[in-house]
Amino acid sequence: MTHRVLMLPGDHIGPEIVAEADKVLRCLADAFGLAVELEYANLGGCAVDAEGTPLPASTLGLARQADAALLGAVGGPEWDGLARERRPERGLLAIRAELGLFANLRPAILFPELAGASSLRPEVVSGLDILIVRELTGGIYFGDPRGIRERTDGVREGFNTLVYGADEIARIGQVAFAAAERRGGQLCSVDKANVLESSELWREVMTGLAPSHPGVELSHMYVDNAAMQLVRAPRQFDVMVTGNLFGDILSDCAAMLTGSIGMLPSASLDEQGFGLYEPVHGSAPDIAGQGKANPLATLLSVAMMLRHSLDEGDLADRVERAVARVLASGLRTADLAAPGDSVTPTAAMGDAVVEAL
Amino acid sequence: MTHRVLMLPGDHIGPEIVAEADKVLRCLADAFGLAVELEYANLGGCAVDAEGTPLPASTLGLARQADAALLGAVGGPEWDGLARERRPERGLLAIRAELGLFANLRPAILFPELAGASSLRPEVVSGLDILIVRELTGGIYFGDPRGIRERTDGVREGFNTLVYGADEIARIGQVAFAAAERRGGQLCSVDKANVLESSELWREVMTGLAPSHPGVELSHMYVDNAAMQLVRAPRQFDVMVTGNLFGDILSDCAAMLTGSIGMLPSASLDEQGFGLYEPVHGSAPDIAGQGKANPLATLLSVAMMLRHSLDEGDLADRVERAVARVLASGLRTADLAAPGDSVTPTAAMGDAVVEAL
Ligand SMILES: CC(C)[C@H](C(=O)O)[C@@H](O)C(=O)O
Ligand SMILES: CC(C)[C@H](C(=O)O)[C@@H](O)C(=O)O
Repeated sequence: MTHRVLMLPGDHIGPEIVAEADKVLRCLADAFGLAVELEYANLGGCAVDAEGTPLPASTLGLARQADAALLGAVGGPEWDGLARERRPERGLLAIRAELGLFANLRPAILFPELAGASSLRPEVVSGLDILIVRELTGGIYFGDPRGIRERTDGVREGFNTLVYGADEIARIGQVAFAAAERRGGQLCSVDKANVLESSELWREVMTGLAPSHPGVELSHMYVDNAAMQLVRAPRQFDVMVTGNLFGDILSDCAAMLTGSIGMLPSASLDEQGFGLYEPVHGSAPDIAGQGKANPLATLLSVAMMLRHSLDEGDLADRVERAVARVLASGLRTADLAAPGDSVTPTAAMGDAVVEAL
Repeated sequence: MTHRVLMLPGDHIGPEIVAEADKVLRCLADAFGLAVELEYANLGGCAVDAEGTPLPASTLGLARQADAALLGAVGGPEWDGLARERRPERGLLAIRAELGLFANLRPAILFPELAGASSLRPEVVSGLDILIVRELTGGIYFGDPRGIRERTDGVREGFNTLVYGADEIARIGQVAFAAAERRGGQLCSVDKANVLESSELWREVMTGLAPSHPGVELSHMYVDNAAMQLVRAPRQFDVMVTGNLFGDILSDCAAMLTGSIGMLPSASLDEQGFGLYEPVHGSAPDIAGQGKANPLATLLSVAMMLRHSLDEGDLADRVERAVARVLASGLRTADLAAPGDSVTPTAAMGDAVVEAL
């Protein structure tokens, strides 16, 4: 059966890095018999420009028929002035919601070759390997009521609603427990249960899941302490699970700890195994079009896609090994280069991975 | 006129560190003519034990008559099983709300003598000096409606409301602009305006304040990016201003960057200059009663109190210089000691500061 993969290059460096993913997927097809069909569609700012909306119905339709989607990155200053509904990130939020991509997996891994790029001391981060499981279709991102209104005294107020149902919490909890079972067996659930009732329920539901996962040790941590502990001693964590907003903040913090944000992939999964895969970094308007972008996070996102949505674990391993080999050989894109290193452009980096495959 | 200061030792190490503050205040009275009267009251777990509630009416009454209050720390595992309204941290939230302590000032400073304690590379954090201004009586901490209810389909859901009025935003904004004027002239407002309407209003109000503060350069940053930037390059920040929940997370993260969380004071101010002062660290049940607590954050909180509520800036400078001298002389409490350093107990550290005064 041929896998259908929807390619969503997006904005700025997006098309440059997705082009390297295209190369790698075609190489896997040619050399290793991967049965894959690639289609392309617009999402984000490019979709606003071409079709007037950040998530065109045609893109959504193609995504619904695909087995997986690969996103480059969306956004840029040229769309900042638009009304909220037309901004690029609305396309991202809308595709998450429309496709029910509730489980966001964000690994934060330190690549030994790149330990020097971390702002943390090597002894604090060496060997770092955390998986953050973030709930992605609920919480304050999507809660109603929301808006800006006038109070009775005439003063305006802005308001949002943080809401989580026990079913939503259990669903993301199951994903996190399963991930912890496959990994180190440690799961830390992050909330603010000393202040928020929504977190109180979160903690209660997570605690309720623990008995059916005897191989996993569950702990709870307040979000402020979690931010501290990530900075102080990040290796204490194996898998972390948290809500949409806390996950947004903590996963970016954790990614930055590694110093290799140009290297980190992510997956956003629905209940059936469909996934949207994307690098953790953004669209980097400042370096777009100059061959400076690092395609490796996108290629590692392809590996996640092969593993989680296409059931091609062996090929996923192959891609990851190829990336590791390229790094070990000393090739560095601009973001990774130490002063004095020679710099490999985006396309050459992609070629090197194809070569290593 | 005699200043009235309410001392709130609180729980676990709280009484130990507040005892050192008492020493220092009495020394300032004896040696430098500070006219001060100290009263004591219960807040937190000790108040639950003695009076059945974490914020007794008598404590609140004394606070309303005082010019400032000094808090040690509240909380501990022995009160974790209590109903929400009786937990120690409720006392803290309630006193903030009752007294209108809307402006939380949390400096994150790296003491050069302690650079080695940071988990970040010295070149990333040396000279770090950030002030985080956190809104403390609004936002999702206090918003209604809130609770846990049953949905029509019988599933329970937990919900909270994030709400900010333009007046609340402007009020904390004024404090932050004023602080930036006194400091480096840079103010970074942190929000999540790409997702939350409450943040959209936040950003609009902050932007509206800028023209009346021409000496301050205002920038805006999304909270996820702010967490990354704090880890990547924290010295880019001078003053940061943000809401209650984001401030909780970011200020703890920033404090931990310095590695000297036992050294960091905080102030929570109302509109008239009354303030509740407390160390950033918690009640540390694990080391209570052993003379291991570091009293310096509490003594630096006394300095903030002298400056912000008692109009005794010279004495504030004196206390800060005395603390610096004690550090420079090599004395270290257990939390600061490097392997091999000799360890100074809590009371001896307080005595050394009195000596240095
Ligand atoms: C662009 C933005 C809406 C998005 C989010 O907050 O979820 C991004 O920060 C992310 O983490 O994917
Ligand atoms: C104890 C808790 C309620 C409190 C808060 O979240 O405000 C604490 O973390 C703080 O920052 O003072």
